[in-house]
Amino acid sequence: MVNIGILGVGTVGTSVANILEANGDIIEARAGKKIIAKAGVVKNLSKDRAVSIKLSDNPSDIIDDPEIDIVVELMGGVEEPYELVKRALSNGKAVVTANKALLAYHRYELQELAGDIPFMYEASTAGGIPVIGALRSGLSANHIESMQGIMNGTCNYMLTKMINEGANYDDILKEAQELGYAEADPTFDVGGFDASHKLLILASIAYGIDAKPEDILIEGIENITQTDVAFAKEFGYEIKLLGIAKKVEEGIELRVHSTMIPQSSMIAKVDGVMNAVTVVGDRVGETMYYGAGAGGDATASAVIADIVDIVRGNREPMLGYKEGFQSNLKLLSRDEIVTHYYLRLMVDDQSGVLASITSTLGKFGISIESMLQKPTNDDDIAKLLFTTHICQESKMQDAIKALSALSVVHGDIAMMRIEK
Amino acid sequence: MVNIGILGVGTVGTSVANILEANGDIIEARAGKKIIAKAGVVKNLSKDRAVSIKLSDNPSDIIDDPEIDIVVELMGGVEEPYELVKRALSNGKAVVTANKALLAYHRYELQELAGDIPFMYEASTAGGIPVIGALRSGLSANHIESMQGIMNGTCNYMLTKMINEGANYDDILKEAQELGYAEADPTFDVGGFDASHKLLILASIAYGIDAKPEDILIEGIENITQTDVAFAKEFGYEIKLLGIAKKVEEGIELRVHSTMIPQSSMIAKVDGVMNAVTVVGDRVGETMYYGAGAGGDATASAVIADIVDIVRGNREPMLGYKEGFQSNLKLLSRDEIVTHYYLRLMVDDQSGVLASITSTLGKFGISIESMLQKPTNDDDIAKLLFTTHICQESKMQDAIKALSALSVVHGDIAMMRIEK
Repeated sequence: MVNIGILGVGTVGTSVANILEANGDIIEARAGKKIIAKAGVVKNLSKDRAVSIKLSDNPSDIIDDPEIDIVVELMGGVEEPYELVKRALSNGKAVVTANKALLAYHRYELQELAGDIPFMYEASTAGGIPVIGALRSGLSANHIESMQGIMNGTCNYMLTKMINEGANYDDILKEAQELGYAEADPTFDVGGFDASHKLLILASIAYGIDAKPEDILIEGIENITQTDVAFAKEFGYEIKLLGIAKKVEEGIELRVHSTMIPQSSMIAKVDGVMNAVTVVGDRVGETMYYGAGAGGDATASAVIADIVDIVRGNREPMLGYKEGFQSNLKLLSRDEIVTHYYLRLMVDDQSGVLASITSTLGKFGISIESMLQKPTNDDDIAKLLFTTHICQESKMQDAIKALSALSVVHGDIAMMRIEK
Repeated sequence: MVNIGILGVGTVGTSVANILEANGDIIEARAGKKIIAKAGVVKNLSKDRAVSIKLSDNPSDIIDDPEIDIVVELMGGVEEPYELVKRALSNGKAVVTANKALLAYHRYELQELAGDIPFMYEASTAGGIPVIGALRSGLSANHIESMQGIMNGTCNYMLTKMINEGANYDDILKEAQELGYAEADPTFDVGGFDASHKLLILASIAYGIDAKPEDILIEGIENITQTDVAFAKEFGYEIKLLGIAKKVEEGIELRVHSTMIPQSSMIAKVDGVMNAVTVVGDRVGETMYYGAGAGGDATASAVIADIVDIVRGNREPMLGYKEGFQSNLKLLSRDEIVTHYYLRLMVDDQSGVLASITSTLGKFGISIESMLQKPTNDDDIAKLLFTTHICQESKMQDAIKALSALSVVHGDIAMMRIEK
């Protein structure tokens, strides 16, 4: 028999306890031992919870209980769970967590501290989809060339609605909040921060690269308009918030931003709140993993999978590499990113404007690939939408500044990156 | 250092040896030990091969070599590799195989013989896609409700061409043969037999159910015409050769056949030679695994993933369950399958025919859901295409016999099953 203690018995923790009981027959057959949720720790003992396990408000009741074999951390936050998880490891207890923020900031210290003690975190990235396992085990023969992930269901739900139903950003955000898909302060989701945590976890397994959220380019979906959606449709693109990792000659690009991607690519076909991660290996080619990225039961499915693996005696290296591995891959700075770009700007509707814009772009070595001009309500002003051939991010940022300074250009210039 | 011996150094075996060398740096970092392809066994020593490992034509040179730790079986066939693999296991050597036929017939005997010795087979099903690992580990918290797999690239390539380009079956088969996607005798692929082997492997892990190919319904794609393709498009379906496993109240349905599925489902979007498997768990919901189902490097990627797992010391139960597990799920007979059906028949183009057909169907409790009548080159004959509400396979087979006996019905009646 194996005893589990759960730190944080909210939606996911409740599901973990309930599934261990409801599906106990099949789980025991697969793990070879009975797995029992013995106790849980919560902040507020007076709140009603739909679980029958013993609850306490003192983490020590789990962390220091010699009968607890595996500590499941589902509290959220960073520093508080970090301290508790460290104590659990120092007590020799295996740890399973769904906490992406904890890992985004402390995964390498935790790997060091854990040593031979199992530390698993399948549920931290893309919810119920077993993508950590696929990357750590199933693709171990490959140098990973690139990854693209739809890892935030809120953003994907909103973008799907904007594209398929013509909804405006503000309206659909309000709807997502009413449905419980988006928080009252939606910044963590719509700003790309949630996806960045997951991308960093995957990047460690793929590339052995250590980076924190503040080291990488993170942008959200807040500035997308129906004009951009119409352009994307016209030119055969979908718009997705992607976490992107890419190995190039100079190193590794890691970035999160709204992206135009060809409608024909598999990940472009992932709609609504669903998540998916595409991983391209040098030998296996493109693979994709699709499923529910959130929700109590789906996330608990991944938590329990980790528990079963630990009970079976599996000992995967936490971040996919045996001790002593030094990645020689360099994280590229934001300025060094190279990709295609889409720009949207308001210009005077008069002759010579286009020449002025293309010559400004030309100064930075940027050339236009496709273009669309649209009238506005104001007869004197036109909307100019275009995509560029590949160029470096720093050049594009300088070009946007130079374009903004032109007297024929009005208001802010909107930019989106394109992956082909 | 870990030494590998390869039985059968064809396309996949050559890739295994070459990747172990070319990607040796990253594989060693992930496995914790250097993995060497030490020797290979081939039937014909005089044939040129693009590998630098020592070759012999005597399997004992690998199976009885005390320096070989892991035997990789890539010969194909059933009884010959079965004998060799048994000898390898009795010598205490771990085994990795890509041989779906071997597993379709002998997986339970092999599990028994292997005992605690690792026996891995990720490459046997859906090539480079790590779906065995996902099912055995990542979804272990779930009762599996259903699976649908596109597990034969030849069929999917042909169907994609028939649907997207209007190609006829015979023309596209010829093209597939010229491209090397289909064998001179294509029956094993287009008849659904290849897919059935893979389905049986997945069914063991999902349900603990023992079945052989001859126990289940296997049909291919040979009878699909452009009339069926046009009907499918009209009613929002794609046509795919699917391996289907489904848990229903009475037991487990296992079947392979061409299937109409809604265009909006993720697996309907998988085109060309690519493979994908959708697995629905009672807790995680729908997940999908997508990638290359064949090819030397992609298959070798899965073979090496298994080798790395063995070297890491992982000890998953071979078929996903610890010893002693008895599935209480019953394999349903072909007659007991319940689904929607599509029928195509040639009828006299005269009044009263439709009434005669619906009343014949009614005798078997079958009702029509949607219908399309099309003229033919013969003014007196019409094509009648329709779908039915759910009914039992035995009833449908009886109804088809009764319809065929009607004087107003001409020629063979074509039937396809529908999954919603």
